Amino acid sequence: MHVLILGAGGMIGRKLASAVAAQGIGGQPVSGLTLADVTAPPVPAFPGAVQAIGLDLTAADAPSRLLDGRPEIIFHLAAIVSGEAEADFDRGYAVNLDATRRLLDAIRMTPGYRPRFVFASSIAVFGRPFPEVIPDDFAPQPLTSYGTQKLITELLVNDLSRRGMIDGLSIRLPTICIRPGAPNKAASGFFSGILREPLAGLPAVLPVADTVKHWFASPRAAVGFFLHAATLDTAALGANRALTMPGLAATVAEEIEALRSVAGQAAVDLIRREPDPVIARIVDGWPQAFAADRARALGFQAETRFDEILQIYLTEDAPSVSAR
Amino acid sequence: MHVLILGAGGMIGRKLASAVAAQGIGGQPVSGLTLADVTAPPVPAFPGAVQAIGLDLTAADAPSRLLDGRPEIIFHLAAIVSGEAEADFDRGYAVNLDATRRLLDAIRMTPGYRPRFVFASSIAVFGRPFPEVIPDDFAPQPLTSYGTQKLITELLVNDLSRRGMIDGLSIRLPTICIRPGAPNKAASGFFSGILREPLAGLPAVLPVADTVKHWFASPRAAVGFFLHAATLDTAALGANRALTMPGLAATVAEEIEALRSVAGQAAVDLIRREPDPVIARIVDGWPQAFAADRARALGFQAETRFDEILQIYLTEDAPSVSAR
Repeated sequence: MHVLILGAGGMIGRKLASAVAAQGIGGQPVSGLTLADVTAPPVPAFPGAVQAIGLDLTAADAPSRLLDGRPEIIFHLAAIVSGEAEADFDRGYAVNLDATRRLLDAIRMTPGYRPRFVFASSIAVFGRPFPEVIPDDFAPQPLTSYGTQKLITELLVNDLSRRGMIDGLSIRLPTICIRPGAPNKAASGFFSGILREPLAGLPAVLPVADTVKHWFASPRAAVGFFLHAATLDTAALGANRALTMPGLAATVAEEIEALRSVAGQAAVDLIRREPDPVIARIVDGWPQAFAADRARALGFQAETRFDEILQIYLTEDAPSVSAR
Repeated sequence: MHVLILGAGGMIGRKLASAVAAQGIGGQPVSGLTLADVTAPPVPAFPGAVQAIGLDLTAADAPSRLLDGRPEIIFHLAAIVSGEAEADFDRGYAVNLDATRRLLDAIRMTPGYRPRFVFASSIAVFGRPFPEVIPDDFAPQPLTSYGTQKLITELLVNDLSRRGMIDGLSIRLPTICIRPGAPNKAASGFFSGILREPLAGLPAVLPVADTVKHWFASPRAAVGFFLHAATLDTAALGANRALTMPGLAATVAEEIEALRSVAGQAAVDLIRREPDPVIARIVDGWPQAFAADRARALGFQAETRFDEILQIYLTEDAPSVSAR
């Protein structure tokens, strides 16, 4: 079996590549692995044939290079992120919509080829106003170009799957927490930062109220979503192959309690409250919780308590893991 | 004011062109009119400058030709119809999605230009299972490539409007009844045929049960939707600029009763019942009724009784109108 991971240089993409290389997919061995991103992504230990490709997804030859190994499973995680897609209209549509269209076209033009296509979508397909817990039949209403591009791609995945051109599904990821690495400028960055930085003995800024609630899953859960989506029986999905992934609805206060239980009050004291009305307003527009009943019934699993999310970070990602 | 009607050769497009030529838009005079379709559409009596263009919407120069008069109002009714979009994947996407994208791109690339863009969408954006009356917040779920293309264009209209690149809205039309002219092969054709043919003294075939219910508006109502959409204050729409138009939910039995009341039992006797399981199954997948509360609150109006629909046909479209 040949597997393509598009966006294999990103945080989730790297973890997914390592997991596929180490354990195969659904108990099946993987013989070939194509890892692609804007620059050639890191290659995990893997006994089979592996190809690391750095490419511009909008280039005319991108589809043929990506599909060269005729991968049976395609994980598509490559995207211009939300902020950039909003700042640069053309680039967002070129990468997040048109490049995916061309890839899908190349697939359907290949005779006898109908790969499993797992598309990384986002809860950004939803927009205010929200109920407190968003049910699976809630109508998507993107309020950003990024969310629009994700939803349009979901619709293409549905239509091409219905027509038997691909065997696709779209998985809408929660906010991933705790993101390893350095703090970034994303409006959502503090959700990880107020845990990650104090765990390393560093100060962190909390720009919103403790009562702010949001929807989370760990990087490990996210990798699990992709692996499960790769082998799921799609006949159970019907016409709507977009699934809101399960996650954990937690408040900032619950995050802080988890931190306290693991690292004590000294760690909590490193969180500095600096209310930022701009960030507060952005976050106020985000969903707080999803039912995700369909995905759970189909076997997708996420954490149920915030201290699990914290322990996963300590086990897998914290920079001092080797020193613990 | 300059007005562009794209799809001006179609049944609704021709009526819309005549209405705009005769009465202007929202009490404002129209000085220039660009009428475009695959072949140059008929030109109604009009005192101002009128241009009738026959063009392939997918041609590279189509946007510049269409936007030459820098129309303040654009009515976009051009489309590959449902059956053809399903039969020819490439052509459906090329016309119904890509050509519209290029037109929208040309608009946003024109400095200082932000026209009203009224897009003809369809209730084909919805798919089973349906509640008996579909509320405005019901999640679209297209089950055809045509419906997918219409919904994707709605999302583009929303996103470009949100970004101030156009001032757009999408109006989801009911099934138009009574369609004038010859019978066609569309699965929905009988809804018009069982009235139109007997009114002309001709036999008609009814392939489904009398209890089948569907969602209708007259051609006159459809033209009214477009004219109202052209001047509506879009600030009231919020982020979702797609509106399900009002209509009339009626059963086949109610259609037949309206026919009887206008043309008597002799006309009704011209309807031959020939159950067709294929058509019955297709029609079974269609919505029966919509609440359309948002559109009604915004001033869109349709018929409330089927005999109105019948009278409108007799007044405006029946071939023997001049002889009556």
